[in-house]
Amino acid sequence: MAFLNDHYLKLKAGYLFPEIARRVNSFMETNPEAAKRVIRCGIGDVTEPLPGAVIAALHKAVDELADRATFRGYGPEQGYDFIRHAIAENDYRARGIDIADDEIFLSDGSKCDCGHILDVLGDDNFVAITDPVYPVYVDTNVMAGHTGPADEFGAFEGLIYLPCRAENGFVPEIPKRKVDVVYLCYPNNPTGAVATRAQLEAWVRYAEQNEAILLFDAAYEAYVSDPEIPRSIFEIPGARSCAVEFRSFSKNGGFTGLRCAFTVMAKELNARTKSGELRPLHPLWQRRWSTKSNGVSYPVQRAAEALYSPEGKAQVAELIAHYMGNAAILRQAVVDAGLEVYGGVNAPYIWVRTPEGINSWDMFDMMLEEANIVVTPGSGFGSNGEGYFRISAFNSRANAEEAARRIREMSW
Amino acid sequence: MAFLNDHYLKLKAGYLFPEIARRVNSFMETNPEAAKRVIRCGIGDVTEPLPGAVIAALHKAVDELADRATFRGYGPEQGYDFIRHAIAENDYRARGIDIADDEIFLSDGSKCDCGHILDVLGDDNFVAITDPVYPVYVDTNVMAGHTGPADEFGAFEGLIYLPCRAENGFVPEIPKRKVDVVYLCYPNNPTGAVATRAQLEAWVRYAEQNEAILLFDAAYEAYVSDPEIPRSIFEIPGARSCAVEFRSFSKNGGFTGLRCAFTVMAKELNARTKSGELRPLHPLWQRRWSTKSNGVSYPVQRAAEALYSPEGKAQVAELIAHYMGNAAILRQAVVDAGLEVYGGVNAPYIWVRTPEGINSWDMFDMMLEEANIVVTPGSGFGSNGEGYFRISAFNSRANAEEAARRIREMSW
Repeated sequence: MAFLNDHYLKLKAGYLFPEIARRVNSFMETNPEAAKRVIRCGIGDVTEPLPGAVIAALHKAVDELADRATFRGYGPEQGYDFIRHAIAENDYRARGIDIADDEIFLSDGSKCDCGHILDVLGDDNFVAITDPVYPVYVDTNVMAGHTGPADEFGAFEGLIYLPCRAENGFVPEIPKRKVDVVYLCYPNNPTGAVATRAQLEAWVRYAEQNEAILLFDAAYEAYVSDPEIPRSIFEIPGARSCAVEFRSFSKNGGFTGLRCAFTVMAKELNARTKSGELRPLHPLWQRRWSTKSNGVSYPVQRAAEALYSPEGKAQVAELIAHYMGNAAILRQAVVDAGLEVYGGVNAPYIWVRTPEGINSWDMFDMMLEEANIVVTPGSGFGSNGEGYFRISAFNSRANAEEAARRIREMSW
Repeated sequence: MAFLNDHYLKLKAGYLFPEIARRVNSFMETNPEAAKRVIRCGIGDVTEPLPGAVIAALHKAVDELADRATFRGYGPEQGYDFIRHAIAENDYRARGIDIADDEIFLSDGSKCDCGHILDVLGDDNFVAITDPVYPVYVDTNVMAGHTGPADEFGAFEGLIYLPCRAENGFVPEIPKRKVDVVYLCYPNNPTGAVATRAQLEAWVRYAEQNEAILLFDAAYEAYVSDPEIPRSIFEIPGARSCAVEFRSFSKNGGFTGLRCAFTVMAKELNARTKSGELRPLHPLWQRRWSTKSNGVSYPVQRAAEALYSPEGKAQVAELIAHYMGNAAILRQAVVDAGLEVYGGVNAPYIWVRTPEGINSWDMFDMMLEEANIVVTPGSGFGSNGEGYFRISAFNSRANAEEAARRIREMSW
């Protein structure tokens, strides 16, 4: 008699984005005229084509696979040396951060990495997540059996929620109680907030003192323009022994459809066995990849490498400037509409407080029906997201401008 | 105080192929002249370039991503409709097997799928594996905490090993005791054996009677030329409610470096909750993909689709004919050398009994030192693989012929 994983049955019905897709499709079917005007500022998916350097690298790699002399089959499970080196050298060592090539683990996405990291962690950790939060952190912990059931607000028993609201600048206070694993994401999805060096230093100190591990999601680091704001947790002394960093090529190179990301795990990161011995996690993570993966598609690895070429870097900078130009336009429109607004300065997300008395999903429906704009309801990211909505800056300039016009014209 | 996953510490030191690589590298460093003659018949990695239809599809898809009008970002997590449809239609419905498009789940590899399937299964299942076996089935169960420690022969407490030896044609007997999850792989890696329809029918009956789930790895189905041998477990009536099938484009289309595979899970497949209720696994598997993945790289999905075009099918048939030509050459050489040989007829692997008194790793070293041929020691696949070695037919024709010549000339 085969058993299933009961923990899955605790999950709430819809992952946020499928639920949004359902509502949008339903609206479009019943309003075919308005449907043509719909502008999607919901999901954080890039809209601009891949950079020229990436396209050239892909074509070249494909041609290599067409020739017996240059054909490649199975690659190293953790990524080819050329890409691990390019990442460690450009994103870390060139910026004065000590990371070795073999501390880079290439993957097919940060979403996957956020789930897979739990493979090497034990089941007895107290896990803290910010609220609001990227739902994947929560759901993967539910699936792994690290929680009890959800309450009526969707909060899972056993998880420690760290409220992020306007009052704390959307960066949580250091918890009074001990936690073992903490998810932090800066620049933040969904709030667009950034964490200062002092705030991250406080977290690293906390982790050191409590032997906690920080799971630091830096998927949006490319959007930081303020030189005072850290782009990597490894800029903070001590982080090598208490943090894992998640990075992605999705939002800088536009790889959402191409799929490539990586984790950074330093060799000093230790955790305890049940019997209390300290052991490094790096060999476990290395083994996880050797056993459960055959690595990332070869042409995609070459595509990622191309992002570090001089042309690639310039083209990424153009993409970032494009999306941040949209963010400025959309942010100003929300300000002009008289709403309370956060984010959108060092991050591609704008986090907006709904007008008094209107909840997140009602606001979602209003934006869809009145302005034909798809946003993301804040409550979809956790109970402390209630009363907010997120506008994504990933769009064409024309769409951003048109969305801004409609936001100004809505009956606020 | 963060805890690690202690179960990882039960794993044996080397995953088989890294250990082989270590020995080969060591040999080549100390024997630079012989190193030039080394022929690799170890790991089952393809050697021939990608089919023309695949190359064309990749270039076209890359060009789509270079143009804003045809750019694609996030795709459906389970795969685009076009590829799920092509698979279900060509591999199943066209062959009279009832599989719906949404019962196909695209992934970046069968190795990954073998690990991921455990995500949706419970921890209280009795798990049976054949012996010898693809090490990933074992190691992923160890990582998931489904076993105790290993004994001196490398067998893990709690796993049920089903011996496969020459005496039973390398297809295990139906177990006397109840097991809940059974891994079967036919055509078999490593033994090259195939299972007859009657044998698979017996397994499906067993699974039905015991509410067990068969995890059927059909990665090598393209190598079956005998029309009487099933290529899919779903050819057996009743399998929809008791089996999951793993398929890959690695060994038919040569995608070991490109990465694409899929699982097939029918909607009738149920498993029990801890409290004994029967529930379908399909929604859990669907949710697993939605939460932990963003799908396969878009150009790779188009590449897989191209394998189902008329040109693609013809090119795959040529590749299979090439590798099976190698298999015939290598198999005959082993026969001529007077060794006892299995497989290599409906599978790209030849399974050879070592001469009396020589164990698998000694044979590995002898083949490497005397003939400069890399094989895979049978004991690396489990204790019942002791006394055998595996020769892979994935090679150029010239290498296969040269390896055959050297095998004949060895001092047996």
